[in-house]
Amino acid sequence: MGIIVQKFGGTSVGSTDRMKRVAGQIVKEKEKGNDVVVVVSAMANTTDTLVKLAGELSDYPGKREMDMLLSTGEQVTISLLTMALQHRGMKAVSLTGRQAGIRTDDVFGNAKITSIDTGRIKEELSAGRIVVVAGFQGVTEEGELTTLGRGGSDTSAAALASALKADRCDIYTDVDGVYTSDPRVVPRAAKIDGLSYTDMLRFAMMGANVLHPRAIKHAKEHGVPMIVRSSLKEGRGTVISGKVQRNDSIVGVALQEEVSVLTIHGCDGGESLILYDLDSHHIETERIRHRQGLVLIIKDQDIHLVKKIVRKYNQAYSHFDMREDVSKVCVIGSIQSSGEVKEKVTNVFHDYHIGKVSVWESSVGLSAIVDRTDVEKAARILHMHFGLDYIESKRAIL
Amino acid sequence: MGIIVQKFGGTSVGSTDRMKRVAGQIVKEKEKGNDVVVVVSAMANTTDTLVKLAGELSDYPGKREMDMLLSTGEQVTISLLTMALQHRGMKAVSLTGRQAGIRTDDVFGNAKITSIDTGRIKEELSAGRIVVVAGFQGVTEEGELTTLGRGGSDTSAAALASALKADRCDIYTDVDGVYTSDPRVVPRAAKIDGLSYTDMLRFAMMGANVLHPRAIKHAKEHGVPMIVRSSLKEGRGTVISGKVQRNDSIVGVALQEEVSVLTIHGCDGGESLILYDLDSHHIETERIRHRQGLVLIIKDQDIHLVKKIVRKYNQAYSHFDMREDVSKVCVIGSIQSSGEVKEKVTNVFHDYHIGKVSVWESSVGLSAIVDRTDVEKAARILHMHFGLDYIESKRAIL
Repeated sequence: MGIIVQKFGGTSVGSTDRMKRVAGQIVKEKEKGNDVVVVVSAMANTTDTLVKLAGELSDYPGKREMDMLLSTGEQVTISLLTMALQHRGMKAVSLTGRQAGIRTDDVFGNAKITSIDTGRIKEELSAGRIVVVAGFQGVTEEGELTTLGRGGSDTSAAALASALKADRCDIYTDVDGVYTSDPRVVPRAAKIDGLSYTDMLRFAMMGANVLHPRAIKHAKEHGVPMIVRSSLKEGRGTVISGKVQRNDSIVGVALQEEVSVLTIHGCDGGESLILYDLDSHHIETERIRHRQGLVLIIKDQDIHLVKKIVRKYNQAYSHFDMREDVSKVCVIGSIQSSGEVKEKVTNVFHDYHIGKVSVWESSVGLSAIVDRTDVEKAARILHMHFGLDYIESKRAIL
Repeated sequence: MGIIVQKFGGTSVGSTDRMKRVAGQIVKEKEKGNDVVVVVSAMANTTDTLVKLAGELSDYPGKREMDMLLSTGEQVTISLLTMALQHRGMKAVSLTGRQAGIRTDDVFGNAKITSIDTGRIKEELSAGRIVVVAGFQGVTEEGELTTLGRGGSDTSAAALASALKADRCDIYTDVDGVYTSDPRVVPRAAKIDGLSYTDMLRFAMMGANVLHPRAIKHAKEHGVPMIVRSSLKEGRGTVISGKVQRNDSIVGVALQEEVSVLTIHGCDGGESLILYDLDSHHIETERIRHRQGLVLIIKDQDIHLVKKIVRKYNQAYSHFDMREDVSKVCVIGSIQSSGEVKEKVTNVFHDYHIGKVSVWESSVGLSAIVDRTDVEKAARILHMHFGLDYIESKRAIL
């Protein structure tokens, strides 16, 4: 008997019928004798509908007001799911992020969890209740409502699991686990049975959309095992824990189709101000120091804000340029001997006529910027050349 | 220069286009140099949609969870309306009931405001911001979200106006003021220019749907004038204040179509327990002591709960009976000499063949229970016989 955290995404709770099914899965876990804490996202499409309403009123709605608006989505889900549980005769209670004690910083739209006061949750669990918590949201010290940005509900779940020292954090989603690559792009991608936190973090940092790096870091903090699994069909999913050992150094191929490369030339120490400012806005960028200056790989969605920030410090560099409409493809894993993977990738790109902009190695693997038109082909070829196709026989031993 | 509280109902903020218009009205008030606090309801239909979702999950959803669900409606409106104001270049901030310091008791679904801590609102006003507050909601001492029941946003507005010692509380609605009777039933009903708090309270207690008694009581507390006016067309509306003098003792005719009469026979002191329990559930009933026992006039929507409560104390009386499917029609005003109005009404009912169940006088006027099929006719006839038709020439002097 222990504490299990279950997280259900927007598709899993996208209708009252789906909520009834989810309630069934929760009851099953509770009936095993576990204390269950459930974290949910907004119902699918809710967020889009709210964003559309905001767009009808303002081109640049304030971030504080957007958080006020969007955090209603999860509040609707927690109350409805709790009703579904109570209807099945279960004792259950819904808690907003605030009521669940989730404190964040005040970066609206992309806040970071700073602490969790688990008092109320533990009280409710002691009273035998299933606790249904609104994911994606928290509250600042001043009582302002915040949202956690992309992957926010996963982050809420992992942070709660960690703070509660839970036995497990199950991430229910519409895929049945983590794959060696995106199966929509790479048909020979295979489900991975087990991954270490470090390898999962590599996946996440390379832009695989399954789990947000912040969520993994929270789980790693107290060694809470996470399982990424399907809410639609039974299955073992992918286990992420500290106990997984791998034989292979390369574990996957990730791709990010919509990125841009911003190069800042002639910056002499002044880049630290820029990086600090980007960090305080929680903008994720990959950063590489080249001979010609500082290179930032940024998501297309962040271009506007990044340019604004970089321009603010125009005393600190000579000039910057931007290469838009490119893509990033990554070979994920630990690179043992420097240069070896890079040479292999360069050769493969040459042989298959893939237009590359640049290639570099880092602690999470190898990244390459390629023409956007070539990225899917590049992913498929690298997946094959690094022996990831049909990986079943080589799976990790749990 | 002072503080003006403006309240906009669900129809007034029912779409983003309507919100833009409302924003215009707010800006106009702000530009007169006033501090403006805006209280809003959920967008029209939002509450119905949410209630429908809850109904798909449970026949009797828990009240705490219903409040968790429904309070999202106002939160959506405050954020969107604030965006609309900011888009017009105004400084504005949205506040949930909690953030606005609205404390309530813990009667979920029908909570009473117990206190308001205006600190945050005053801070925001001092910073030059328009403050947009979620109506209909508050928070208990334990941090649980509550809703205020019927007319809740009016109550929020009046209570805030009172706590802020506002100069005025404008209730924007889809009618242009308070009428001598419901114009859909009584075509010769006329708009009233001014009413005293006491007369307005009489209207509200007799079931006129314009303002909830609680709202009026809050305004009366600190003598804040309220104006009931249309959000669709300009006009003076109906002013409710302590300064209004009337020449007429009878000010209107109200009707409640869906009521039932519950008579408790042979109760000997035990009724106080029942009344206390009804009060703690905030159920509004009119109570009359007859020879045969205690008579309660209850709204059809409360029948289920009232019966449950009355049955709980079945030691305290011999039996009760219930007359369902009747209506109440009221002559509103101060009755100077006892029996006079009652005689007149009884004669009128006799002359016009209106099937009456009972008639009694009270401090707010005269009430009659009649057959549901006769109630509209009864209202029209009483309106005429008490000289309320074409009332223009006799309006109150402000």
